[in-house]
Amino acid sequence: MKALVYHGPGKKSWEEKPKPSLIKPTDAIVKINRTTICGTDLHILKGDVPEVTDGRILGHEGIGTIGEVGPAVTGFKKGDRVLISCITSCGRCEYCKKGMYSHCEDGGWILGHLIDGTQAEYVRIPYADNSLYHIPDNTADEEALVMLSDILPTGFECGVLNGKVKPGDSVVIVGAGPIGLAALLTAQFYTPADIIMIDMDDNRLEVSKKFGATQVVNNRNEDAVKRIYELTGNKGADVVIEAVGVPATFELCESIVAPGGHIANIGVHGKSATLHLEKLWSHNITITTRLVDTVTTPMLLKTVCSHKLDPGKLITHRFPIANVLEAYDTFQHASVEKTLKVILINE
Amino acid sequence: MKALVYHGPGKKSWEEKPKPSLIKPTDAIVKINRTTICGTDLHILKGDVPEVTDGRILGHEGIGTIGEVGPAVTGFKKGDRVLISCITSCGRCEYCKKGMYSHCEDGGWILGHLIDGTQAEYVRIPYADNSLYHIPDNTADEEALVMLSDILPTGFECGVLNGKVKPGDSVVIVGAGPIGLAALLTAQFYTPADIIMIDMDDNRLEVSKKFGATQVVNNRNEDAVKRIYELTGNKGADVVIEAVGVPATFELCESIVAPGGHIANIGVHGKSATLHLEKLWSHNITITTRLVDTVTTPMLLKTVCSHKLDPGKLITHRFPIANVLEAYDTFQHASVEKTLKVILINE
Repeated sequence: MKALVYHGPGKKSWEEKPKPSLIKPTDAIVKINRTTICGTDLHILKGDVPEVTDGRILGHEGIGTIGEVGPAVTGFKKGDRVLISCITSCGRCEYCKKGMYSHCEDGGWILGHLIDGTQAEYVRIPYADNSLYHIPDNTADEEALVMLSDILPTGFECGVLNGKVKPGDSVVIVGAGPIGLAALLTAQFYTPADIIMIDMDDNRLEVSKKFGATQVVNNRNEDAVKRIYELTGNKGADVVIEAVGVPATFELCESIVAPGGHIANIGVHGKSATLHLEKLWSHNITITTRLVDTVTTPMLLKTVCSHKLDPGKLITHRFPIANVLEAYDTFQHASVEKTLKVILINE
Repeated sequence: MKALVYHGPGKKSWEEKPKPSLIKPTDAIVKINRTTICGTDLHILKGDVPEVTDGRILGHEGIGTIGEVGPAVTGFKKGDRVLISCITSCGRCEYCKKGMYSHCEDGGWILGHLIDGTQAEYVRIPYADNSLYHIPDNTADEEALVMLSDILPTGFECGVLNGKVKPGDSVVIVGAGPIGLAALLTAQFYTPADIIMIDMDDNRLEVSKKFGATQVVNNRNEDAVKRIYELTGNKGADVVIEAVGVPATFELCESIVAPGGHIANIGVHGKSATLHLEKLWSHNITITTRLVDTVTTPMLLKTVCSHKLDPGKLITHRFPIANVLEAYDTFQHASVEKTLKVILINE
């Protein structure tokens, strides 16, 4: 089969690889129908994720069709259409029992990281019964479910749920990329009073308005802290969601959180930030971090099937999977190409 | 009357001041029976709390007897024995409605800070109906209730509740001063599996053992991080409570929190700390800060009256209030004098 293979920092190729086969009885082999590229894949290609080794097939998102299942798999059979979760979970370790699948002792985020991933014609999925979801028959836009592999549960669990968004809240989301937009879409489940998006890219801010932002702030052009205090009656925001992953944006969150408020970090950080405890110690705030657990995937599937959430909005470009290198270019040059998520099609 | 008066950094005196009188209809005048000194008073005397001005009577803890009430006070009358809360609350602003009395728009921590405090023969208490508590008739050790003005609700709310201590948890408390010990005592309400105290003072660690610590670590003599991983099966602690207030101890908490764990800050910080997001972004942790709201004071009173909690244990020294300067010396030289809390008696 063909696959997108990582060959060390800056190097990748679309090349022939052996088709995966069952290793453990709990495995399934899935033929990929649609997959996508994540910001995390770009981090890997920059060399920021050193545990990814030369020869690894990238990708941790996708939908497909079951080709084969191991003898211990009881929930899926050949021909079933499935959504692949970015998180693999054994369902039986201490972390899985707590619903913290991200830290599964024999899983977690391993696809396209510690084992071969989904940017390929076929993928092996360990613990298939816990790590795959049936695509409901009433799905209007099946392709859009690729957004449920990672970015929607990530925006929702790490941003909205950890941020404890509730009716009437003022919510600020720092970063209007696909993950920030996923948080924007799912924050609306809870009817906050205001959702203010901060980004440096005017196109993404325009998209944010279409997706339900009540205000947008371009922090390249204006003082975001001053503007947020103006917009929140000088109190700061009840919920601040960090969806970038650099010290400056995290520290911006610290500056704009209201007393009693929540900072929910989604960003993947490579560096430490300064925590202004000299101000925040008495502010009754909560800071959370989280690698997505994908515990809300079944719930998010219901919101899609009942037309409360339209994840297809996040898709801006489509490519045949053989053109994956072009798709990476388009995703990397998001500002010029106005890219949100790209879909790779394997017919 | 006599009072302990702040005269700028490093300066205080026991001197004559006018007896307070009612200013607003919601005020009460309380004759102090017992009061104490807090670590925060030492911060003020170091000049760390610049909003405290020359001439201010210090102190925000105590029990006493109502001398006089304003016409709008309905819950208390002359002669009632009362516990004074360190937090004054109007009960009607947006923050009070949320139970975040610490940030009351016309109160919060004001006693011995923005208005005259309790290290005196008399004190004026604003919003008496919301800021005082009746001392129950079945109180065996009335004096010990002084510990409920501040340190027990602080240790409990900012440490134990924010840390979400639950049965079976491994809990680490960094700092075995009165506040850390208050967290140690109240953490036991929830039956954690282990409570490990970290401090540099062997006497305080010995006290911790008597108060219920399952393990103690002197981080002057040994590598606390290594020891905590040994004691927690190499996982780190489910709950880490910071009860010191310097960057090094906060960063120690970051180093020993388990994935999915909670860091509950109690310490009053004067400096920023480094937040190691490059490690913690994916660890599913929660960091909380809080100025005590004293929402649990009625509950804590019940635990004392039902003999589930003995706050009298925290009292090591007693002085007539006229000897308050000696009491400050004893409190300041806690390591030599083996001081926890000192009681000042106004007969």
